[in-house]
Order: sequence, then structure tokens, then C-alpha cells
Amino acid sequence: MKPIGAVAIFWTGLALLPAVAADDAHEWRDVDPNNLVLIDTRYGEVAVELAPQFGPTHVERMRALTRAHFYDGLSFYRVIDGFVAQGGLGEGTASTKDHPKEAAALKRWPALKAEFERLATPDLKFTPLGNPDLFAPEAGHVNGFAAGRDMKQGRLWMIHCPGTFAFARDNGADTATTEFYIVIGEAPRRLDRNLTAFGRVIDGLQYVQKLQRGDQNIDNGVIQDSRRRDPILRIRLAADLPEKQRPHFQVMQTDSAAFAKEKAKRKNPAPEFYVRTPPPVLDVCGVPVPVRRVR
Amino acid sequence: MKPIGAVAIFWTGLALLPAVAADDAHEWRDVDPNNLVLIDTRYGEVAVELAPQFGPTHVERMRALTRAHFYDGLSFYRVIDGFVAQGGLGEGTASTKDHPKEAAALKRWPALKAEFERLATPDLKFTPLGNPDLFAPEAGHVNGFAAGRDMKQGRLWMIHCPGTFAFARDNGADTATTEFYIVIGEAPRRLDRNLTAFGRVIDGLQYVQKLQRGDQNIDNGVIQDSRRRDPILRIRLAADLPEKQRPHFQVMQTDSAAFAKEKAKRKNPAPEFYVRTPPPVLDVCGVPVPVRRVR
Repeated sequence: MKPIGAVAIFWTGLALLPAVAADDAHEWRDVDPNNLVLIDTRYGEVAVELAPQFGPTHVERMRALTRAHFYDGLSFYRVIDGFVAQGGLGEGTASTKDHPKEAAALKRWPALKAEFERLATPDLKFTPLGNPDLFAPEAGHVNGFAAGRDMKQGRLWMIHCPGTFAFARDNGADTATTEFYIVIGEAPRRLDRNLTAFGRVIDGLQYVQKLQRGDQNIDNGVIQDSRRRDPILRIRLAADLPEKQRPHFQVMQTDSAAFAKEKAKRKNPAPEFYVRTPPPVLDVCGVPVPVRRVR
Repeated sequence: MKPIGAVAIFWTGLALLPAVAADDAHEWRDVDPNNLVLIDTRYGEVAVELAPQFGPTHVERMRALTRAHFYDGLSFYRVIDGFVAQGGLGEGTASTKDHPKEAAALKRWPALKAEFERLATPDLKFTPLGNPDLFAPEAGHVNGFAAGRDMKQGRLWMIHCPGTFAFARDNGADTATTEFYIVIGEAPRRLDRNLTAFGRVIDGLQYVQKLQRGDQNIDNGVIQDSRRRDPILRIRLAADLPEKQRPHFQVMQTDSAAFAKEKAKRKNPAPEFYVRTPPPVLDVCGVPVPVRRVR
């Protein structure tokens, strides 16, 4: 047994961040503080990048809710292991009755028109993954987000992967108002084009994983005892913080050579470890888009 | 907005446990206490069902390690969010030096011959998923475990899904000894047929999700400060407990009509909610095999 022991297992199985080279600026982009939502949980800060290209009115709503301090003091009231962590008011659930004032204030936030998908316009650079997908005619990335595309229909949408940020809704398509969810399990692709996904967690998903779970057989996962729900301490938009207090993140450009290299590395992982070369395909949700915190 | 609010979202998107009918006994099987490993973490108990059909000598090793109290007091020393939680001694890592006595005892546990895959013999009932898989010629289930099959080669193997339990190894195929890992993120299918997967978490995966993470850019995710590692309080085999203290679980038979119904329900979820009927395909790792605790 070599001293490195079993830890050698995944050396290159992971998409480790490449060493930061001085001249790689064109392969990364800065996350716009107007699109950076910071969710404070008792476990740590969760950073979400919003994607106006996928859900412009939902992004606007999220900014407005944040600025109104709507979420501060509410909770992750419905958390189902392997599926989603849902936060906000929880209308019509055991959560609402604990917040009558907020429930009454809901009329300030009328239902939004669905943004499940959009036109595949040429301004959105879609980089195909390069292999088939089980669920979409084409899978790939747009500006750091996993996306599906159907060129026959000329449509494009955000794919539900672990970390995807979206708004919950009622049975009708145009019924989302304030409740959000974050995917915490194996990609629930059946939700694609059925809900408005408009962001993703770029840092701190591990804190979402620590949230108190509900029992999916009781009230569809809503945690009945409000004292057991983990609070949303506060949600802020980075743009609203003094410049010096904002975290700064960069996301690897998904149409860059650097990202193509990441994908190639995952398709052809370390031959010294992989006794059998894995099939040369990727799950679009199994390819982490690299993120780095600049400060 | 209907009072049920956004919670209606996932009503039937989940594979909820079917109501327990008096006459469904033939659709469930009892988990053998000889295959039931109980991992105590500070967050709760994690139950793992071992699969001797996939890794007989690894299962034997796991039972022996457990009976020798090998793991008790060791830690989850390498935890990478979205990938795996690895536990045990951590040979050749920052973990080993904290446990010189255990490291010395390692010679009791010689390296195992790999059991990455096996013959697809007729005694193993393989139930095909019913749609293509990205990584395997065929995907389906064997006795409650997600499995891949290649009938041209006559081979069958356990698929790496969230919750999969496996042994870590060094670069050589036949180098696993004592360290285990549990998958906690999007199915890392590149590991299929490259490591010996021989069980899965049937209860308490949410506690594994709470484990302290390492930084994958430092020592490949090994948590450097031993005080920050979450301990493995103890690991026991249910068969070693007095009958009355054992938890009893049942797993839905994956070759039953009930499981076929579960899969059909996921493929055709609630039309009142799904504005767009999802593609009628399943990700083999996105189909939870139902488990119930009898007592």
C-alpha cells in the first residue's frame, strides 16, 4: 500500500480549480453585485447568482423582496432530503400561520408570469456539452448556467441541477410570488420547463445541506414545528452593501477554452487511477462550473 | 392564489411511500440484520444496507471491521460537498498521524481484491429501468440497488448514486483496505466499475449531508484540523445488537408491480401541476427505491 493510501482515489476525478494564471482574465467573468444574493443561514453564508437572461421579472422580484427585507426572519420551512430546500413564507402551510403579518403583506407581491423557458436568441451563447442528454434535445451551458435547448422550437431553458435557485408556484403556471427553492439532490430534471429557475448557488451549498429536514410523508415535507425550522437570518443583495463589504466572485466562462479543458478532463480522468476508462460522456449537472472568490 | 400555495409544487413529483396495505408483504423485503450497518454520527444514525451480491469479500471485511470496533472514534476526514464523505483512518493523510495506533493495526486488514463488477448470472434478477442510460448499456435495479449491465460482456455492477456506500482505494485496483465513502452529490458515474460499491444508505443520508466539509483544493479535501472533523462515534452491525434494539427496515422489491408503479408515476407526474409533461425518461439515480422502517 502506498503511503498516499486511499486518498489517491479521486485525485483528478474532481474538477479542481486550475491554478490562477495572471493572464486568464478572459476565461473568467466577475459576478455582477446586482445579481449576487447573499442568504445568511445559521450555518454560513450562501451566495446565489441570479440570471436575468433566464428569468428577468423573477430576478427583479427577488431584488425587490430582498430590499424590502421580506425574507429576513422567515424560514426554510420545507426541506426534503435529496430534493429541495424551500424558503420564505410557505403560503397555505403550517408556516403561514406563524407569520400572519407577512401573509397579509403578500398582496404587495402579485403572481408573476412564468419564465420557464425563453427564445434561443443569438445573443445567448450556448456551448453544447458535446454528448446526448436524457431529457433535453441538447444540453450545455449559457454564461455559467446549465441549459437545455430545442432548436426545432427555438427554445432555451435553465436546467435543474444541484444548487439551482428557482421560485415555487401553485398549480397554475403563472402563480409564483415569493417562495424560493434550492435543489439539494440528484438533478430533478422533470422540473425543467415547469418552474422558473433563474439562478444557482455559487458558494455555500454545503450550508444548505445542513438545513433541518422535514418528513416528506407529512404535509409534503413542511416542518410542522416552527421551532425546528432553520431560520433565514437575512437575505441581502451584494449591490446594496458598501463596496468593501461585498464578496467578489468570478465564474469561469463556459464558452472558454479553459472550460472545454475542464470538461475534457472529466471525460478522461486520471488513467493511473481509472482502471477502466469511463464512458466519454458527461451529465450536464455533474460538471461543476468553476467559481473562485477573489476577495 | 389558492390557499395551498406554492407547496402544491411537488405533490406528486416525489416518490412518496405508498400507503401501507395489509397485503403488500410480497412487494417488500426485510433488510437482513447481517447486512445492516449502523453508523452513529453526532447528527443522527445512518443505516446502510450491504449488498453481498455485489461485493461479497468487501461485505465480509465491513462486518469484521465493525466487529473489531475499528471505526469507533475515527472520523469523516475527507468530505467534499457535492461528491463524497469519506471515513475511517485516512492512510497517508493528515488523518493518519492522529491515529498512530490504528495505523499500525492496519496490517490486520490486507488489501482486498477488487469487486468492481460481477458476472450477470441468472440468479440476480435485473429489472431494466426501461429507457436508455448515458453511461451504461443498460440501467436498472437488482434487489433494491441501482445497477448497470452489459449483456455483451455478461457483466453487472452497482451504479454510483447519492447514498452509495463503497470502499476507497489507492491507484491499483486491488488496494482497498478499510476506508469507506458515501456519495453525497450528483451521481459520480465515472466511478462505476472503477471502485467496489457494495451498499447504500437506506436511512439518514440527511445526517451525512450535515458533516463538516473539507476544501477540495487543500490535500484533496482532507480536513487538516482534526478537531474540525466530525467523528464516527461508532459503527455497529444490527445483527450484533439484541433483537429488540435493532431497527427493522423493509425495502420495496424492485422487481415488483409496486416499484413499476413508482417509476410510472415519476415518468408521468401530476398533470394538474406539470404544465409541460416531462420527457418520459428516468435517471436511474433519480428514482428513490422506497424504504420503510417497520420498527
